[in-house]
Amino acid sequence: MWSKQRFLPTFSQVGIISQMGVNSMVIHYPNGQSYRPLTNSKYEKKPRSTKNEKIIFGNRGMSLEDELNASNEYYLKNQQAVIHKKPVPIQIVQVDYPKRSAAVIKEAYFKQASTTDYNGVYKGYYLDFEAKETRNQTSFPLNNFHSHQVKHMQACVQQGGICFTIIKFSSTQELFLLPAAVLFRYWEKRTTNRKSIPKKVISSQGFPINYEYQPLIPYLTKVDLLIEELK
Amino acid sequence: MWSKQRFLPTFSQVGIISQMGVNSMVIHYPNGQSYRPLTNSKYEKKPRSTKNEKIIFGNRGMSLEDELNASNEYYLKNQQAVIHKKPVPIQIVQVDYPKRSAAVIKEAYFKQASTTDYNGVYKGYYLDFEAKETRNQTSFPLNNFHSHQVKHMQACVQQGGICFTIIKFSSTQELFLLPAAVLFRYWEKRTTNRKSIPKKVISSQGFPINYEYQPLIPYLTKVDLLIEELK
Repeated sequence: MWSKQRFLPTFSQVGIISQMGVNSMVIHYPNGQSYRPLTNSKYEKKPRSTKNEKIIFGNRGMSLEDELNASNEYYLKNQQAVIHKKPVPIQIVQVDYPKRSAAVIKEAYFKQASTTDYNGVYKGYYLDFEAKETRNQTSFPLNNFHSHQVKHMQACVQQGGICFTIIKFSSTQELFLLPAAVLFRYWEKRTTNRKSIPKKVISSQGFPINYEYQPLIPYLTKVDLLIEELK
Repeated sequence: MWSKQRFLPTFSQVGIISQMGVNSMVIHYPNGQSYRPLTNSKYEKKPRSTKNEKIIFGNRGMSLEDELNASNEYYLKNQQAVIHKKPVPIQIVQVDYPKRSAAVIKEAYFKQASTTDYNGVYKGYYLDFEAKETRNQTSFPLNNFHSHQVKHMQACVQQGGICFTIIKFSSTQELFLLPAAVLFRYWEKRTTNRKSIPKKVISSQGFPINYEYQPLIPYLTKVDLLIEELK
């Protein structure tokens, strides 16, 4: 059912994809993967194997960031939540103002973000989270975080915000929502103890998220569980 | 008392000012005022008039954005709230990766923001607001807002967020916190009715904010009043 729907995208889906192509610039800095637009060319070149292979629903050419942006757009359109990715912070050095055309930034540098990437409001709660992808198979390395990001999440939790990380294991396409409390515990012991969170801990103390049709990453259903715990 | 303290800044104040000079790039696009660093040179060149002039506490060379950033930094350090200004959204076109040095953005353009400038968490509440300065003396022109900013605030309010605008009348250095509901009312009638909010309405239905020593703009005391209304 899923794969049929993928090749007959709905109007709104086409809208999201084309908007992404025009408006959003995916920045991979400095050594990230390059952006691959959603395309069926892979399947056109080589017919799908008829062997009994496992069908993986996510990551058909989309990065975790693209998947989350599409999911957040769905949530916004359906008035379920207002969550946005923050723009990449830039230090602008030189700007040209040509006559009769838009200002051009001629020299600028990437700055280190002082917060997490995503935040917003859902059912009156402040949500704040990072999205991280790893190729590791058995654990999630803590060097994926900067200390100011963890500090920021700690400050948000202290103010009553709900913080977490969405972790994707690329090799298996598995997704988890990991509550910030688990991250904090491993973060504090990273100098004396291990420098990563075991996948076993992530799957037992976090919440697995399955890819769905719409939204692609239905993470708010897991946030509902975090809200239940707060009550 | 105030003016004496200004010329004997505390250690933390010096810290904030110097950090701002190094880390923050104030962008005035396309026709804004240029950034003037905090300095006493004005007073050194020309001795202060001894006439009975009115002392204005705010805006000693700082833009409203600088003043709010300093206030938010104070709130963060004192664990009272976590509020940040979002980075300016940029469409990056060309990036150079020189050997042994940082990536340089060689061509980029300013994008229109799809949200407001400031958001964060305070006492468990999601806050979302714009900061606007006007030279008008009797009203606040609604063309200071883009429709997507108002739509964003409406979506946030619907999710239980607290939204408002901090308005500064430059000529008198007066500051007001205007609840989003008042803006929405005037915004909806802007095509049939007047295209600005009268200052009288802002001062009667909004909350005046007086500049203080620390934080410079103590707007959270007015947010407390909005929270009281929600209860």
